[in-house]
Amino acid sequence: MPFLPDLCDLLGEHGVLTSPEDRAPYERDWRGLSNHPAMAVAFPKTASQVSDIVKLCVAQSIAIVPQGGNTSLVAGGVPIAGTPQLILSFNRMNTIRSLDLAADCIIAEAGVPLAAVQNAAADAGRLFPISFAADGSAQVGGAISTNAGGVQVLSYGNMRAQVLGLEVVLADGSIWHGLNALPKDNTGYDLKHLFIGAEGTLGLITAACLRLHPAPRAIATALVGTGSTENAMTLFQSVRRLAGPALTLCEFMTAEAIALGGTAPLKAPAYLLLEISALEEDAAPQALIERVLEKALEDGTALDAVIAQSARERESLMALRENIPEGELHAGGAVKHDISVPLSRMADMVAATQTLIAQNHPGCRLNIFGHLGDGNLHINIRPPEGRRLADLNKPAITDAIESLAVSLGGSFSAEHGIGQFRLSGMAAHKSPEALALMRRLKTAFDPACLFNPGKTIPPESNHD
Amino acid sequence: MPFLPDLCDLLGEHGVLTSPEDRAPYERDWRGLSNHPAMAVAFPKTASQVSDIVKLCVAQSIAIVPQGGNTSLVAGGVPIAGTPQLILSFNRMNTIRSLDLAADCIIAEAGVPLAAVQNAAADAGRLFPISFAADGSAQVGGAISTNAGGVQVLSYGNMRAQVLGLEVVLADGSIWHGLNALPKDNTGYDLKHLFIGAEGTLGLITAACLRLHPAPRAIATALVGTGSTENAMTLFQSVRRLAGPALTLCEFMTAEAIALGGTAPLKAPAYLLLEISALEEDAAPQALIERVLEKALEDGTALDAVIAQSARERESLMALRENIPEGELHAGGAVKHDISVPLSRMADMVAATQTLIAQNHPGCRLNIFGHLGDGNLHINIRPPEGRRLADLNKPAITDAIESLAVSLGGSFSAEHGIGQFRLSGMAAHKSPEALALMRRLKTAFDPACLFNPGKTIPPESNHD
Repeated sequence: MPFLPDLCDLLGEHGVLTSPEDRAPYERDWRGLSNHPAMAVAFPKTASQVSDIVKLCVAQSIAIVPQGGNTSLVAGGVPIAGTPQLILSFNRMNTIRSLDLAADCIIAEAGVPLAAVQNAAADAGRLFPISFAADGSAQVGGAISTNAGGVQVLSYGNMRAQVLGLEVVLADGSIWHGLNALPKDNTGYDLKHLFIGAEGTLGLITAACLRLHPAPRAIATALVGTGSTENAMTLFQSVRRLAGPALTLCEFMTAEAIALGGTAPLKAPAYLLLEISALEEDAAPQALIERVLEKALEDGTALDAVIAQSARERESLMALRENIPEGELHAGGAVKHDISVPLSRMADMVAATQTLIAQNHPGCRLNIFGHLGDGNLHINIRPPEGRRLADLNKPAITDAIESLAVSLGGSFSAEHGIGQFRLSGMAAHKSPEALALMRRLKTAFDPACLFNPGKTIPPESNHD
Repeated sequence: MPFLPDLCDLLGEHGVLTSPEDRAPYERDWRGLSNHPAMAVAFPKTASQVSDIVKLCVAQSIAIVPQGGNTSLVAGGVPIAGTPQLILSFNRMNTIRSLDLAADCIIAEAGVPLAAVQNAAADAGRLFPISFAADGSAQVGGAISTNAGGVQVLSYGNMRAQVLGLEVVLADGSIWHGLNALPKDNTGYDLKHLFIGAEGTLGLITAACLRLHPAPRAIATALVGTGSTENAMTLFQSVRRLAGPALTLCEFMTAEAIALGGTAPLKAPAYLLLEISALEEDAAPQALIERVLEKALEDGTALDAVIAQSARERESLMALRENIPEGELHAGGAVKHDISVPLSRMADMVAATQTLIAQNHPGCRLNIFGHLGDGNLHINIRPPEGRRLADLNKPAITDAIESLAVSLGGSFSAEHGIGQFRLSGMAAHKSPEALALMRRLKTAFDPACLFNPGKTIPPESNHD
């Protein structure tokens, strides 16, 4: 049967891209590390068109690669080699279907950019808290499928915590209408959690009902210099104990990391960027942060601190953190990692990493920064002065860092997911029981293996 | 093969109860509405003993009914009729394995009572927030398997939100060691969510790693009288907008409901019990609640209000809410429901219920109370003055109330789960797609259907 003509009949001439030039930007991941051809790129406008596409692909055994903003750091939304695939882009499913302020929720289609959800919430006096570097391009469906995190997870939780309900097209083309807006619903298995973080391998998310939060009316931001990771953890614990969920940001940066983001207004071996939010205009988060820092400076857990006195000062402090990835790129790039460990092992993780690199990869430079309060660090290894990234033994370094995190009870992928690039970690670090359960789920939900092949689950091996 | 001797060999004489008298309290649910025989009651002490029991039962096709504190309101932890079953009690798996204050988490075995977790947290200056009437008997495993809720879900989330990791015995007897303590871990499907709320039908939870929260140091409690459900909702929204997660309690009671709990210090058609918590001793949640109530009294959303001035006053206000279920029982009982609707439909739900009962069940008395901030109401129907509960057409009333909630985009079981008693609601209200997905999960995880038979999933029917 002629697949492409049938597809064009379904979506119209402008709903399908087939030429190599047109397909190119959808076939490569944004870092350009994965690039394999697809038969075409399809742009459905409705869930029922997605359903029709799935039925068409099932009939002809063509795999489907769901793609949102294509900002995955692990090539989770692009084709793999050696199997006929259709890229299903959600770019044209970009409608905000409803906004219910009394219920504090919004229903957005999979292709709505996260920034558009943030803006719709802000216009209504609410906050949608999932925020990260790529949120201008990253889309709702992709962010849910990867359970995206970012800088505000500490207080508001990750993407999973924002999802009240989902609409999902299943592997037989049927549609599960699970778009409920209920914080509490104990009627059988909570199916939405199966699709959140599944990277499109179990079903195709076409729309979501997302939580909105009250918008903060006052924010206090401080950059604190500390003598060690231990001191940074102690400081975090004491702020958290006083501020609880009002502590909306707690980012860690080593001196080497912050230097890549700009010039800090104070000098220290390690830094914390803290933000305390308040819902009342007349509340004084500033007073709280001042009280905490005063004590920390007295007892030595803090060496020095700067509190932003204006919006501009706040932005310049935030920029020091936000500019690190770009600064790292300009400095020649790094072998990147996204690990998490229990909060009680954070200092051990940093110390052990420094020892490991000094011993096994002498001269390599460490760029350690990330979401301290979540136990999530980005531990990036830069080549020695004057050497190139290509000179490094990336697989050896990555295996060492990831194994270290796992040995401390941690994870080798805290927020970026698995996609194609972390499959080796899955094979190396996940238990046979966990892999067996994942394969059982995959078989139960996508028996023909047509949804996003080659992602999330490593190939069977004797190690399992 | 001789099952019981093998079981005794495994657990020792004192690890198995077989006589009808000994089995009796485990075979009936605590409301005495379900009572069917089991072959025996087994009391394993370790996950590996649970694993051995599963293998023994698989070999002889004997079903396993996992049981915690046996406080289910839907008979989720007791046997059904007509199939050989073993009750697996977690009463002897009651060890708190570890408490990690730096990581703010606790690892508790399935049989630890919730109250013991609350106490361990409190002794360490932390809060474990899951709290409900039965939490002295209810156990960790059961509370996770039913995704228990209670009065503090509004701020802290339900049981699901407290679970960082699980240890689960699977249907082939293998053990999934998923006891991690990581707020962020995106390494493949998040398996723990499959077992949370699954009522023991997919796996047997033997231990959990649970989140701890900073303990509040100041609490302000107020009872507010309002003229209508609309006004109660308006008041809730305005407090929430100012207090956010500091609003740790928002319970709704109609005048009829509160009268069953005691004598209110003020008179109104409807009541809100509000609690605002603060982490700092010198913080003044009282000032915030006073400011909000002042405004509400001015604009008429509140008719009258009492703010507790002492611990005793606070307890007496809380008692008005806590005593409602017992008061209802003493007054002759009711047909009970546990519905939720989107917050924007709460007022509609209450009004429509009043109309429905007045029209179709004249004389019946309504007892409406519950977790307003979660959109979760307990709508209980009492017989007319002088009539008995047995005189009511329970199935007709329940179908009407549940259908009403579902028609407003709500749920027919918000926090109590399905067990045996809500299976009719599953058959009536869940979509064919949802039921098909649930059956696929059950088949994938428990192909022989030996885990908690007759719960959660309704029997196949033509309606599916």
